[in-house]
Amino acid sequence: KRDDELILPINDSISSTLDTNQMSAKTTIMANPNFIENKIWLNGKEESFNGPRLQSCLKEIKRRVQESKKRSDIIEWNIHICSENNFPTAAGLASSAAGYACLIFALAKLYDVEGDISGLARRGSGSACRSVYGGWVKWWKGNRSDGLDSIAVQLAPASHWPDMRIIILVVNESRKKHGSTDAMKRSIATSTLLSARADTIVPGRISEMESAIKSKDFPKFAEITMRDSNQFHAICLDTYPPCFYLNNVSHAIIEFVHAYNEFRGSAQVAYTYDAGPNACLYTLENNVGEIISIINEIFPTNISEGYIKGIPVEGCTI
Amino acid sequence: KRDDELILPINDSISSTLDTNQMSAKTTIMANPNFIENKIWLNGKEESFNGPRLQSCLKEIKRRVQESKKRSDIIEWNIHICSENNFPTAAGLASSAAGYACLIFALAKLYDVEGDISGLARRGSGSACRSVYGGWVKWWKGNRSDGLDSIAVQLAPASHWPDMRIIILVVNESRKKHGSTDAMKRSIATSTLLSARADTIVPGRISEMESAIKSKDFPKFAEITMRDSNQFHAICLDTYPPCFYLNNVSHAIIEFVHAYNEFRGSAQVAYTYDAGPNACLYTLENNVGEIISIINEIFPTNISEGYIKGIPVEGCTI
Repeated sequence: KRDDELILPINDSISSTLDTNQMSAKTTIMANPNFIENKIWLNGKEESFNGPRLQSCLKEIKRRVQESKKRSDIIEWNIHICSENNFPTAAGLASSAAGYACLIFALAKLYDVEGDISGLARRGSGSACRSVYGGWVKWWKGNRSDGLDSIAVQLAPASHWPDMRIIILVVNESRKKHGSTDAMKRSIATSTLLSARADTIVPGRISEMESAIKSKDFPKFAEITMRDSNQFHAICLDTYPPCFYLNNVSHAIIEFVHAYNEFRGSAQVAYTYDAGPNACLYTLENNVGEIISIINEIFPTNISEGYIKGIPVEGCTI
Repeated sequence: KRDDELILPINDSISSTLDTNQMSAKTTIMANPNFIENKIWLNGKEESFNGPRLQSCLKEIKRRVQESKKRSDIIEWNIHICSENNFPTAAGLASSAAGYACLIFALAKLYDVEGDISGLARRGSGSACRSVYGGWVKWWKGNRSDGLDSIAVQLAPASHWPDMRIIILVVNESRKKHGSTDAMKRSIATSTLLSARADTIVPGRISEMESAIKSKDFPKFAEITMRDSNQFHAICLDTYPPCFYLNNVSHAIIEFVHAYNEFRGSAQVAYTYDAGPNACLYTLENNVGEIISIINEIFPTNISEGYIKGIPVEGCTI
């Protein structure tokens, strides 16, 4: 991040948003003149309303409401926020991105805020700015010091590449050791490789990635995805003291993916890891059954019930 | 490597050579006019004499012998080579460096070769060129395309820093998954961060390291050592497909070292990892007992006999 409070990144980035039927956050907000104070519950547990990020989001949305001169009737009422996500929190699965995107969307609905809301969501969690849109989304880093041009745009809707599938392998659902924010701060301060990545390598990859998505070139998409995931973790390792997010199981999944792709003769599946050991695999629909079957074979688990969820897949014999 | 056959590196490097009483290779060579062929045994097992690196070493040493016009009497005789190392082979503990340094030293003795022999050893295994000298050694990458200036020089003898100690933690003594040579070739071909490291970062670190060794500044020495080890593994991860040498135990040792240094208030111990999961810890003599005691506590082992070897240390109660 180039600015910690405004949450401005040092490079552009591209993400895909999961189908909300499968993994999502759900937020309900109620404003009431009789509420004596603001309150927030995350997954049923009351949390402090004074967190700097929540405050930053509210301040920014109220600024927008005042500009628009709409809903001045309810803007001073206290609110109660209930937010739930149906997947592990803080395990490197973008729970804060989903949570803040959902929160800002709900606040924007409540207060009738119009226009792009990604810049509002960014104040809560950088990557939340991408998650306010579905499909393929790009976050422009922006150049302004006030961050007003650091917003997300949808590159293509999910329907553009309908057979794209994401398989999430939860290696460890406990909270991650390093909070992303502190780790990023330390990377900027100490990694001597980071500037080469941010200034030179990422810009080239972003435009290659945009064209791979546009032309639905899966092998190209897969290679850029894997190389960039690896390089992100290389920077984490080049941070001092280093951050490790990948563990032995993550390494084994990466090796499986390369072995599978080599066997198939082209990149048919790609991995990417965020700030945790859990793998996101991208593949096309017709490979899903085979990949799930092989993974169940290589990484057997005792948890039989509720272990696999998502879009039903046909297994296959291997 | 900038040249694969001549084994020319892309940057300078510094290493320390272990006391041969503790970890070493031992090579005996006999030349005899009655030997009907050249033979070589490694750790008691006969190996092929036709390996390209062994051939390259012999070709180069014979060139030097012919230049000097000495020992033309025995240069055509066949030789028998017996080489043994008292530590695991190909486990990322520089067995080939030790082996080739020892081989070249023995051949140079046999054929009365004078002058610097590090360039000869380099033909066997790049890092072997450093291992022909004791103490603190620097390998100049050199600039000539024939590699004749890619040699090692001793920066300081071991006696310069007499309380320096190296603790080697053998995490896994099996042969490594990736041979160093292939992995290095792949890094040069695919890592987009490598040039920043080799062209910009390493040269600065080399001169800082030389001054840290010269002034016996342990905290500075330790920080450069750890940062550079981490960056080497970052480059391995940025290689495509990636190479992983560190495993969960390696990660835990790194975290222990940072926690210990934080507790002590300054860097009192440093880790470095070559192409494998095994840690080399550097520390000063007065810390060795405490560190070994803590490590035995954190990483208990069932192997009681012969598990710890080396210079005897006094344990301590923790």
